[in-house]
Amino acid sequence: MGGGFFAMAAITDCEHLVQYYETDQMGVTHHSNYIRWFEEARTKLFEEIGLGYKGMEEMGIISPVVGLTAKYKTMAKYCDTVVIRAEITRYTGVRFDIKYTVFDKETEQVRCTGTSEHCFISREGKVLSLQRTNPKAHARFEELVNGKEG
Amino acid sequence: MGGGFFAMAAITDCEHLVQYYETDQMGVTHHSNYIRWFEEARTKLFEEIGLGYKGMEEMGIISPVVGLTAKYKTMAKYCDTVVIRAEITRYTGVRFDIKYTVFDKETEQVRCTGTSEHCFISREGKVLSLQRTNPKAHARFEELVNGKEG
Amino acid sequence: MGGGFFAMAAITDCEHLVQYYETDQMGVTHHSNYIRWFEEARTKLFEEIGLGYKGMEEMGIISPVVGLTAKYKTMAKYCDTVVIRAEITRYTGVRFDIKYTVFDKETEQVRCTGTSEHCFISREGKVLSLQRTNPKAHARFEELVNGKEG
Amino acid sequence: MGGGFFAMAAITDCEHLVQYYETDQMGVTHHSNYIRWFEEARTKLFEEIGLGYKGMEEMGIISPVVGLTAKYKTMAKYCDTVVIRAEITRYTGVRFDIKYTVFDKETEQVRCTGTSEHCFISREGKVLSLQRTNPKAHARFEELVNGKEG
Repeated sequence: MGGGFFAMAAITDCEHLVQYYETDQMGVTHHSNYIRWFEEARTKLFEEIGLGYKGMEEMGIISPVVGLTAKYKTMAKYCDTVVIRAEITRYTGVRFDIKYTVFDKETEQVRCTGTSEHCFISREGKVLSLQRTNPKAHARFEELVNGKEG
Repeated sequence: MGGGFFAMAAITDCEHLVQYYETDQMGVTHHSNYIRWFEEARTKLFEEIGLGYKGMEEMGIISPVVGLTAKYKTMAKYCDTVVIRAEITRYTGVRFDIKYTVFDKETEQVRCTGTSEHCFISREGKVLSLQRTNPKAHARFEELVNGKEG
Repeated sequence: MGGGFFAMAAITDCEHLVQYYETDQMGVTHHSNYIRWFEEARTKLFEEIGLGYKGMEEMGIISPVVGLTAKYKTMAKYCDTVVIRAEITRYTGVRFDIKYTVFDKETEQVRCTGTSEHCFISREGKVLSLQRTNPKAHARFEELVNGKEG
Repeated sequence: MGGGFFAMAAITDCEHLVQYYETDQMGVTHHSNYIRWFEEARTKLFEEIGLGYKGMEEMGIISPVVGLTAKYKTMAKYCDTVVIRAEITRYTGVRFDIKYTVFDKETEQVRCTGTSEHCFISREGKVLSLQRTNPKAHARFEELVNGKEG
């Protein structure tokens, strides 16, 4: 099984220190920030599996969010450190799904869970099949998400 | 049927001019902004039905987002005017749901659809039954969402 | 003196309804939002004087912020409507300055004053002399800011 | 000279990984984010000198931004790591100033410099003299900024 210096699983943990500018007048983190934290963890995850922004950009591939869900359980506060755990849960060749769990670093209390769904598009906005346009990245996804060797 | 100068239905349209600071390097609106636009329309809707922030605050009632979904269809660009249509679709006395459609003002092309789910809490974070703690606001919800006269 | 349907002065007023997501845990608008509101007014001003984004983009001209100042006097709150007054105060052919006053629409109490300084660059990031690369836009600036006829 | 486990100087370096949601359609970080990064570094600095948010809050002291300046030199991009250096440059008992330098972690190229000016207020918004209301925090500022022993 390949991977080399790459991560061997499609999961990562990303830490985030809650900033003052992320609070709202309820005295907690505004709910829209969790959507941004999902993206922070996603960025880190793709870097780790060798499919980071710069590599994908060179291939002319963008993977926009086409669907989102979030469930808010408890509220993160200013100066809390949260961990955003992101895991690719599905890959079909043309789409992939990520699930997220945001929890407090200290207490491990879950703050928020969520999912995002993505497709692949070219710079011109045309939907791509990764399998066809980039067999190497496709193989990497297959290996990590679907457990298939390259 | 009551309501007086209030809106007679739990639905509203809210316009938003897409700002430069809302774009990302894909050249379109960053997806997290739609979540904020949902909130803009929600604020307007609650003002119109007579349950606006100041009134609710005086009653000590906050209604945080406990769930979110969004489906992204097409992409809004800088200087586009979008319309965010928000409608309360469910009210149970302790929870309510809103659905959203964001479309281009000029072409009416749908950009994004979504939902949010809310509960009621006190300033101290305790979950409230609106029916018990504020019969008047409860009656207003019942009238508008469930078609029941006060 | 030209201008036609265009504004006859390099000044405009832009209204903004303060959103919940713009508040912080101090219970007021986070100070970084004023910087974004400056941009909202700037966008509107340039549209009105006929040098809006789309026109400038077609010419391949971008005018990034190279300097900023802000003085915070009083605090805008959720659901307040503020007016952002923006005025071009200087134009040199390669740079221009804008000054801003943000005040409450109802009470006219000043919330914030500020300035921004801009240069012109090409898409490739090269600094441009507007006078050389776009005499028409240059003439428009000269007319509005420096009172010189085309 | 005191300080104990506290930092011995009113200066700190804070790292920030530029996020996708911080980019704009120019393909670089939107200029308003630097203002937020200043705050990130300020938060870290005050934690380090023993005057962090929680401590100050317990004393009922808030220190809002009353003035800001920024000079933009070069542009940070997605996935860049920037360092925000923050230093308290002036303390008068009722006001303090911080200066900031944002530079690329790898190349050390300066992206942005800036300043912020702060006063002290109570929760009710009343301006405070730190010297009078909190001699201990005053002594800490005096020691670090003005080189005076407690």
